[in-house]
Amino acid sequence: MAPIRAAVAGATGYLGMTCTALLAGHPDVVLVRLLSRSHAGRRHSDVVPGSAVDMVLSDGLDPGEVEVVLAALPHAVAAAQAGSWLAGGAVVVDMSADFRLRDVDLYERWYGLQHPACDLAASAVYALPELHAAAVRGADLLAVPGCYPTAALLATVPALKAGLVAPDVIVDAKSGVSGAGRSPSAGTHFSEVNESVHAYGVAGHRHSAEMVQEMSLAAGGAVRVTFVPHLIPMTRGLLATAYLRPLPGVGHEQLRAVYAAFCEGLPCLRLDENPPPTKSVSGTNLAALHVGWQDGVAVVTCAVDNLVKGGAGQAVQAMNLRFGLEETAGLPTRSRWP
Amino acid sequence: MAPIRAAVAGATGYLGMTCTALLAGHPDVVLVRLLSRSHAGRRHSDVVPGSAVDMVLSDGLDPGEVEVVLAALPHAVAAAQAGSWLAGGAVVVDMSADFRLRDVDLYERWYGLQHPACDLAASAVYALPELHAAAVRGADLLAVPGCYPTAALLATVPALKAGLVAPDVIVDAKSGVSGAGRSPSAGTHFSEVNESVHAYGVAGHRHSAEMVQEMSLAAGGAVRVTFVPHLIPMTRGLLATAYLRPLPGVGHEQLRAVYAAFCEGLPCLRLDENPPPTKSVSGTNLAALHVGWQDGVAVVTCAVDNLVKGGAGQAVQAMNLRFGLEETAGLPTRSRWP
Amino acid sequence: MAPIRAAVAGATGYLGMTCTALLAGHPDVVLVRLLSRSHAGRRHSDVVPGSAVDMVLSDGLDPGEVEVVLAALPHAVAAAQAGSWLAGGAVVVDMSADFRLRDVDLYERWYGLQHPACDLAASAVYALPELHAAAVRGADLLAVPGCYPTAALLATVPALKAGLVAPDVIVDAKSGVSGAGRSPSAGTHFSEVNESVHAYGVAGHRHSAEMVQEMSLAAGGAVRVTFVPHLIPMTRGLLATAYLRPLPGVGHEQLRAVYAAFCEGLPCLRLDENPPPTKSVSGTNLAALHVGWQDGVAVVTCAVDNLVKGGAGQAVQAMNLRFGLEETAGLPTRSRWP
Amino acid sequence: MAPIRAAVAGATGYLGMTCTALLAGHPDVVLVRLLSRSHAGRRHSDVVPGSAVDMVLSDGLDPGEVEVVLAALPHAVAAAQAGSWLAGGAVVVDMSADFRLRDVDLYERWYGLQHPACDLAASAVYALPELHAAAVRGADLLAVPGCYPTAALLATVPALKAGLVAPDVIVDAKSGVSGAGRSPSAGTHFSEVNESVHAYGVAGHRHSAEMVQEMSLAAGGAVRVTFVPHLIPMTRGLLATAYLRPLPGVGHEQLRAVYAAFCEGLPCLRLDENPPPTKSVSGTNLAALHVGWQDGVAVVTCAVDNLVKGGAGQAVQAMNLRFGLEETAGLPTRSRWP
Repeated sequence: MAPIRAAVAGATGYLGMTCTALLAGHPDVVLVRLLSRSHAGRRHSDVVPGSAVDMVLSDGLDPGEVEVVLAALPHAVAAAQAGSWLAGGAVVVDMSADFRLRDVDLYERWYGLQHPACDLAASAVYALPELHAAAVRGADLLAVPGCYPTAALLATVPALKAGLVAPDVIVDAKSGVSGAGRSPSAGTHFSEVNESVHAYGVAGHRHSAEMVQEMSLAAGGAVRVTFVPHLIPMTRGLLATAYLRPLPGVGHEQLRAVYAAFCEGLPCLRLDENPPPTKSVSGTNLAALHVGWQDGVAVVTCAVDNLVKGGAGQAVQAMNLRFGLEETAGLPTRSRWP
Repeated sequence: MAPIRAAVAGATGYLGMTCTALLAGHPDVVLVRLLSRSHAGRRHSDVVPGSAVDMVLSDGLDPGEVEVVLAALPHAVAAAQAGSWLAGGAVVVDMSADFRLRDVDLYERWYGLQHPACDLAASAVYALPELHAAAVRGADLLAVPGCYPTAALLATVPALKAGLVAPDVIVDAKSGVSGAGRSPSAGTHFSEVNESVHAYGVAGHRHSAEMVQEMSLAAGGAVRVTFVPHLIPMTRGLLATAYLRPLPGVGHEQLRAVYAAFCEGLPCLRLDENPPPTKSVSGTNLAALHVGWQDGVAVVTCAVDNLVKGGAGQAVQAMNLRFGLEETAGLPTRSRWP
Repeated sequence: MAPIRAAVAGATGYLGMTCTALLAGHPDVVLVRLLSRSHAGRRHSDVVPGSAVDMVLSDGLDPGEVEVVLAALPHAVAAAQAGSWLAGGAVVVDMSADFRLRDVDLYERWYGLQHPACDLAASAVYALPELHAAAVRGADLLAVPGCYPTAALLATVPALKAGLVAPDVIVDAKSGVSGAGRSPSAGTHFSEVNESVHAYGVAGHRHSAEMVQEMSLAAGGAVRVTFVPHLIPMTRGLLATAYLRPLPGVGHEQLRAVYAAFCEGLPCLRLDENPPPTKSVSGTNLAALHVGWQDGVAVVTCAVDNLVKGGAGQAVQAMNLRFGLEETAGLPTRSRWP
Repeated sequence: MAPIRAAVAGATGYLGMTCTALLAGHPDVVLVRLLSRSHAGRRHSDVVPGSAVDMVLSDGLDPGEVEVVLAALPHAVAAAQAGSWLAGGAVVVDMSADFRLRDVDLYERWYGLQHPACDLAASAVYALPELHAAAVRGADLLAVPGCYPTAALLATVPALKAGLVAPDVIVDAKSGVSGAGRSPSAGTHFSEVNESVHAYGVAGHRHSAEMVQEMSLAAGGAVRVTFVPHLIPMTRGLLATAYLRPLPGVGHEQLRAVYAAFCEGLPCLRLDENPPPTKSVSGTNLAALHVGWQDGVAVVTCAVDNLVKGGAGQAVQAMNLRFGLEETAGLPTRSRWP
């Protein structure tokens, strides 16, 4: 089979460079084009430390040039271009939030702007492969969830889907700093965030809306989500700790069994016997789950690498499904320790 | 007034060395004796990097030699000696868990051993000054709470005491590594914990029992606590994020006002307008609180320095109250940034 | 004695906020004015996390209002204002590089601009108190050296002054990230610098010129300095490792004795028996030295807190000398561990 | 070709687990046996977080069972077994210091014990592939250098071999904490080493002896090496900064050209235009070099991942050469950023 011709848009941000590196090593893909708004004309390896990809960055794509575009752009930017990419015959795997919400009004409320491509939104699939593999295989516009929703949903959906817990969940998440992207700011300044931890988005975070959407879909009814993210002094890794209230009669073993059944056959999930440290999945496309129980409350933790399973790796995983490749092709599933 | 003659027991562990440094700079105290089981005969400054205290460490105390012993020893060790210190006329400020639980059975269940001094337990006061100042002033055996209970209680007690929230709280805590003490182990090995975060004690943590005790006391009825600690790659600092369900009709402003009133006049509490980063209280005896609200759920965060307000500083604060000194004497209340 | 009326210029950068905190706790100083170009009108405590100073920031100073201005401004900015402050009767303690070089041409070459106040340069004193205490006491314009020169000079000058080593030294320095200041940039972005170390300024660093100036002065002849700084993933602290070639016949003990004699009576120097970890002086105004020896080469390390002894603390120390106060007034000399 | 049957001895330490992971993904190798003294009987994946290798650990090897043993054991332990492995027909790739020094007396002096296998020492090859590829191809006992010598030698040997610099070099090295291994100790305790840097081994470090041996061999005469290692608060990565004095008439471009020629055709060397951050080679078997120049002194930096190119990866690279495989088979050469 001829390799799939792919482009990465936004190839020099953290998600984009991770995606580029994964595709450069992917056995069934050939990188045809790397797009960058700010670095066009320079080599990838000159802009990204340690990059072994020395393609020159472009500022545009020719129609028909590629079969798939993986877009790691800020919200609203990818949406504005997705139409032309799709019209040119490419599948679009979008890592932004633009096409994740079914309710465009919600998008416009949270993101404070008019949706740049409402018409396309309806055809998009929420591309969390563990939840929507079949739909992913049949769609041309894939909206890949980011790090927080990925971990929060994998920690809670199995229980909600099985109807074992109350539709009112708390997710306390801890993220490494790379989740905030490559642009320097006070909030990502080493001296400000090192040796410290703090909560943010306490009054409500943009990513809650898609959690509510997907948890409610799984539960078959409205689910209330209280989601509080925290910034942790590490570069990579994200841990979601979900607190779930089991319905009367539900026990720990029953709950664990439901998660075990859910993980069955899913190559990017790992069910651990102890709460997973994020480093045990660092650099991989794995989500590691643990189903704990404390005096009648279920405590489910989910660890991911925020840039891989929480972004670029998941985009590749979705692309693999869409093109009929092996689900984990090109994706690291072995972490390195320490 | 003659300075108070003090001893520190366990002066070379992290709590003990912090306590020693605080007392060495305390205007109303003179350090008379530093006790160490493992380093007796050596100078404090030879065992503790950067210590400016060059007293020789001892392995015992003469009766009557001091007016107060601040003990930073493992559980069961201090309890075994507290009786003789008290008999010698000293006030005992104990940083271990030995005298915190009113119910000795609970102690024996969680710590897996017979209590070494049951008879004394009844006379001990739970020395969280913001909750029990009057009792602290009148007691000779002060059981100072550690870092997790301190942050968890300050985050929840004001709401529970005011009867504004349901008696079922979730506390998700994030602690720096120094909370685990100075003894090397796999769990505190740099290469194992750096660039990672994980939950532990998910099935139940020793410190939950005293949280239940104090929250129930404040609420005037049984409170259920789900408490999950996490290890964070930083040396100092602890953040507790409490999730509270307000009773019907209770609003954000009302809740905030209750916390503001609670903080009034308490020199070691600070009520912030944004979620406090732990570094903003690092090295100080302050607990910084923030009262957040997300779609009907109260999210209260409390940041402390785990070794100061979460241990040695709190012991000094309790001692100050007991001896009629200014509550913050000898205690840093200004952090340094960055 | 009436407290000295002081202003801090640039009070919200890392050096400025450190200076502000030190002066706020200084027993003989009253803070009269905090200047900030970018935050005038806001409170210090709103701009600096954890600050207990709630003065409103100003954009200018009235003549005669203060006796001393401690300026923590970028180079060329302080120099442009120093003249008017001096004319108003204030002593100026400048933490920038503007008045450190006796040779204005060198300044203009390294900093790429015309010196804003050539006329003043001649009257400035290089305010490293351990080298020039007498001159500091008599000057009105004090040029306080920064972190790299402070550590490099304290590590080498004793040997050079005693004529025991060749006039050709290598200084390999390792600095925490806060040395780069509070402005976010790619070079201080957490995700870029964490878990990494690199050299920079290899072809020549601005601060070499003042090292050459002061080492040559001490040696009584030209000294060649090879200086290479490295960025280390920590917030505070700086270590300089100096490699010195002893002249024939010079031994380790003789060299150590010279450093011991140099440290004698200097309250901010500490001579350690083992190579000092930077954390052992963190937060203090101490420089910790160790004189090592490896097969005929002297290896002298000097650890400082880059923001205290390497900047704001040294400025306060110089001010103390100038105003006849105790040299360490208001300066922490005890670090906390861990 | 049938895959090469391999065993790893000491498979649960940091070097051993890294070696195990590399071999598990190696296209031409089959892991037949994992040896562990302390964890025999347990699965690798139960002892090593995130390990995808679920082989049971053994405490011994059958003769003839494998073609190669890669040993990641403490010094003296591997040497005691190497003879029997060799007698059984296996090639031995030893990551300890046991067979690196040609002069057994030097070994005994530095390591303070009698060499357990003097007779074998003579047949061993110093397996730094960039220096001794031909010898590596022909030997059965390969002594792989560790992280410090690898970086120090790659930074200096090209210049020494070309006779361009004086035979008197200074190497200032900065290492991540994982270089100290997996056993917890005060020196690797998170709270002790985080936010700090210090020099150690100032009076002389064991690894200097092999640096002297190999540099002298390259220079064709005695070379004096001053080597000072420093511990840096990061898990992985090592940077060596070498200070070399060019002989009269030698210029920067000439020196750079010599390094460029040296790197030519060597797949694990990368010559950078800027000083490489260690993170740019993290997880890879690359050594990144930069040839700087400061006012007549050459400053060459070399960055490696201490566990890969500085240990386990280099062992695999040497094995590849020995068995006629592609030199980089099974070895990552692309780092991930951030």
